[in-house]
Amino acid sequence: MDIKTYIEENKDRFLEELFSLIRIPSISSIEAHKPDMIRCAQRWQELILAAGADRCEVMPTKGNPVVYAEKIVSADKPTILIYGHYDVMPVDPIELWNSEPFEPQIKDGHIWARGADDDKGQSFMHAKAFEYLIKTNSLPCNVKFMLEGEEEIGSVSLYDFCRENKELLKSDIILVSDTSMLASDIPSITTGLRGLGYVEVKVTGANRDLHSGLYGGAVANPINVLCQMIAKLTDENNHITVPGFYDKVLVVSDEERKLMNQAPFDEKAYKAALDIEEVHGEKGYTTLERTGIRPSLDCCGIWGGYTGEGAKTVIPSTAHAKISFRLVPDQDFEVITEQFATYFKTLAPKSVKVEVTPLHGGYAYVCPIDMPAYQAAEAAYNKTYGKRPIPSRSGGSIPIIAGFERILGTKAILMGFGLGSDAIHSPNENYPLEQFFKGIETITYFYSELAERCAK
Amino acid sequence: MDIKTYIEENKDRFLEELFSLIRIPSISSIEAHKPDMIRCAQRWQELILAAGADRCEVMPTKGNPVVYAEKIVSADKPTILIYGHYDVMPVDPIELWNSEPFEPQIKDGHIWARGADDDKGQSFMHAKAFEYLIKTNSLPCNVKFMLEGEEEIGSVSLYDFCRENKELLKSDIILVSDTSMLASDIPSITTGLRGLGYVEVKVTGANRDLHSGLYGGAVANPINVLCQMIAKLTDENNHITVPGFYDKVLVVSDEERKLMNQAPFDEKAYKAALDIEEVHGEKGYTTLERTGIRPSLDCCGIWGGYTGEGAKTVIPSTAHAKISFRLVPDQDFEVITEQFATYFKTLAPKSVKVEVTPLHGGYAYVCPIDMPAYQAAEAAYNKTYGKRPIPSRSGGSIPIIAGFERILGTKAILMGFGLGSDAIHSPNENYPLEQFFKGIETITYFYSELAERCAK
Repeated sequence: MDIKTYIEENKDRFLEELFSLIRIPSISSIEAHKPDMIRCAQRWQELILAAGADRCEVMPTKGNPVVYAEKIVSADKPTILIYGHYDVMPVDPIELWNSEPFEPQIKDGHIWARGADDDKGQSFMHAKAFEYLIKTNSLPCNVKFMLEGEEEIGSVSLYDFCRENKELLKSDIILVSDTSMLASDIPSITTGLRGLGYVEVKVTGANRDLHSGLYGGAVANPINVLCQMIAKLTDENNHITVPGFYDKVLVVSDEERKLMNQAPFDEKAYKAALDIEEVHGEKGYTTLERTGIRPSLDCCGIWGGYTGEGAKTVIPSTAHAKISFRLVPDQDFEVITEQFATYFKTLAPKSVKVEVTPLHGGYAYVCPIDMPAYQAAEAAYNKTYGKRPIPSRSGGSIPIIAGFERILGTKAILMGFGLGSDAIHSPNENYPLEQFFKGIETITYFYSELAERCAK
Repeated sequence: MDIKTYIEENKDRFLEELFSLIRIPSISSIEAHKPDMIRCAQRWQELILAAGADRCEVMPTKGNPVVYAEKIVSADKPTILIYGHYDVMPVDPIELWNSEPFEPQIKDGHIWARGADDDKGQSFMHAKAFEYLIKTNSLPCNVKFMLEGEEEIGSVSLYDFCRENKELLKSDIILVSDTSMLASDIPSITTGLRGLGYVEVKVTGANRDLHSGLYGGAVANPINVLCQMIAKLTDENNHITVPGFYDKVLVVSDEERKLMNQAPFDEKAYKAALDIEEVHGEKGYTTLERTGIRPSLDCCGIWGGYTGEGAKTVIPSTAHAKISFRLVPDQDFEVITEQFATYFKTLAPKSVKVEVTPLHGGYAYVCPIDMPAYQAAEAAYNKTYGKRPIPSRSGGSIPIIAGFERILGTKAILMGFGLGSDAIHSPNENYPLEQFFKGIETITYFYSELAERCAK
C-alpha cells in the first residue's frame, strides 16, 4: 500500500491521536502545568509504542521528562534521530482566541489549537510516517525518537540529558520538524537558525509605590527610567548599541545577500497581512536579511505600576521588562548576555537600582546544503510538492539544534511543514491539514532517499 | 464637656463607626465595585444623621452618588461646606500589604487600611467634630456636607452636580481634610495644589502577536517603540519636551523660592525613607520646588507582551501606558492634554499606530493666606499643636478644589491632618490615631474661630 492510500485510510485515527496530545495543556513555562507535562509524555509513549517502536521510555531529567524510543533494524543501516517537543507556549491573551486553545477544532481545512503546529502537529507526523514504514515492512533506516518537554523554555534540561546519553542518542542525522516552509506551494528547508538570548530586567526606584502628586518630579519613576534605558538600546538606525554586540556577527557576502533576496517575498502582501504601514528594522538591510542574517533585540514584555481600568495616580516602586535577542553566527549568547547586562546597568541614573536576570539562551545554527541528508530531504520534498525546495535562513531559534551539534556531534535537517500563517506562539495557532498529511508523506520519502545515499 | 474629654469618652465608638466605612471596598476606578459605592454612601448617610444633621440625602449623579447633609442654625451665621470623598484607590499590588486592606487593624498607634487616611479617616473627623458641637449645643455655624464617590477618578460627575445645585451648596467657605501636614509636630496648611492631566496611550504594531524570531528585527515592536516615545517626553535635564508645556507656568519669584526652601526638609532623611541613592528631577530646582511649583510627567503604569513567569518569545501587537502630568498655575489641563496628544503622535514611526485617550484632569489651586478663613484655620491648629502652622504648597492634586472656585465661586481651606508616612495610594496605607483625634479637636476650634471672624 502506498503512503497516500495509507494516509487516506487512516486519517481520522491520525487526527484523533494527535488531538489526544493537544488536549493536554503542556505549557512548560507555567509551574502549575507540571502534571500535564508528565501526562503528555506518557501519552506520547503509548502512541509511539502503538506505532511499532521496539522500546519507548519516559526518561527523567532535572526538569520535564524526555520520551525516548527506538526501532533498530540493522547495524549497517543509517540511523535517524527524530527530535521534537511536546511542550507548548502559554495561551495569553486568551480573549483573542476564537476557540478553546486546548480543544482542537477542524475548520476551513485547518486544525485550530495551541500546539497544532508547534510542535505537537509537526512532531506527530514523524510518528505516523514511522508507523506506515513499519506496518508495510519497509523501514529502511534505524530510528530513534527523542521528545522533550522544555523547548519553549530553552531546553534547559536537554543539554545535560544529551551529555549523559551520548551513546543512546548516537545517530547519523537528526531530523526535526519545527520550522516553516515559505508557502504551501513553495517548499523550502530551513538551513539557518538564529541564536537566542533572553533576560528579565527590573528597575527599582523608591522602596514603595508613591503618590505621584506628592513625589512626582522629585523622585525617579522606574517606568520612565526603564523606558529611557530601553530606548537607548537602539539608535536612530535601529542598530543595537550594546558595545561589542556585532563583533562576532559573520559578514555575509554581497553575492549571498543577492541570492537570498531572490527568494519570493512580497513586501506589500507582508505589510497587508500584518496590517502595518511600514516595515521597521535595521537600516541598510532588507526584511529577509533583517530576520535571516542580522541579530535583533525585542522587548517581549513590559510591566509596572497600575495597569487596571481607569486612572490611578502612582509612581510605582518597580518596573520590569523581558528582553530577547536573536543572534546569528558566530555570536555567543553567554557573551552577549554579559555585554548586555554590563551596558544596561550603565544606562541607569543613580536614582534607581537595576537587576538583570538571564533566563535562557542558545547558539545559532547553519546547515550546509551539500550534506547527503540535506539532499535526501530535497529529493523528498521534490517528490511530494513537484518542486525543488528553497534553502532558507529562518529568523527563529531552536537553540538545542546548535546544542546537538556541540554535544552529540551530529548535524540536523530541519524539515518543517509549518506556514507563516500558522500563528505559532499567538492566539489562534493552526496547522493546515494538507501540510500535516503532506508532511507525513514527505518524511517517508526522506527515509528511502537517505538510505540510498547513506548505505554503509 | 470639652472636646478632649468627649473624644476620650467616645473614641472606641468613633473608630468602630469609621471602620464600618473602611470595610466597604469602595474602589471607584473598578466597575465591579459599583454596589460598594452605593453601600458606602448609604452608610455615610446613617452616620451623619446619627451625628445630628437635619437632613441627609444620597443624591444621584451620572456616576456614583453624592451624600449631601445639612444643619442650618441661623441665617446670620457663616456657612461651612465640608467636602470629602468616600471612594478609595485600588489596592494593587495586594501582595505587599501586611494586613487585609479592607479589614482595618490598629497597630503601633496607627489605623492600617485602604482609606484609613485618604479620605475616609480624614473626612470622618468632620462627622465627629460636627457631632460634638451638636451634642454640646455649641454649633456656631451652619454646616453642609458633600461627600462624593469619584474623587480618585477625577470627580467626573461632581462638576455637573455642583453646576446643578449651586443654591444648595452655597457657603462662605469650603472645608476639606484630604491633605497632609509636614510632620506630626510641624503643623501646616496646604495653600497650593497642582493640577492634573491623565491619559492612556496605546501603540499598535502588527495586527496580532508575532513570533519574535520569525519577525524580530523586521517589524516594529510596540513595546520598544512606546519606550522610545516615552523617553523622548523628557530631555537630559528632566525637562518636559511637549511643545508649549511650560508656556503658562507661573514664574515664582526668587524671593518666594527662597522662603519656600526655608521649610523644614531633610534630604538625607527623605532619601533614607525612600531607600534611594539620589533624588531625581528637573535641573535647576530643589526637591520642594520640583513638587511645589513645577509641573511633572510620570508614567503611572505600563504593560504589553508577556508578563508571566519565565520566557516567552513574542512581539506583542500592542503596548500601553498610563501617563499623568501634575500641573501648576496657570496651566490648563485641557490645553496640556491636547498638546501632549499632538506631540506624542509625532514621536511615532510610521510602522505603528498610536491612540491617546484622555482619562481626566483638573486645574491647580492657590489659597491666599490673608483670607479670614485661612486665619481661622491657623488659629485652630495653633490651639491644638501649640505652633503656628506653615503655609505649604503640595505637589498633589485635588482637581475639584479648583472646580469649586470656578463653579461655586467659593474658596477652600485645606485642613489636612495626614502625614507623609501614611502611604496613601500605596500598600499599607495608615493613619495615626493621634492625628485622627487631634484633627477632630482642631476642626471644632476652627468652627468657633471662623464664627468670630465672619459674623454677618
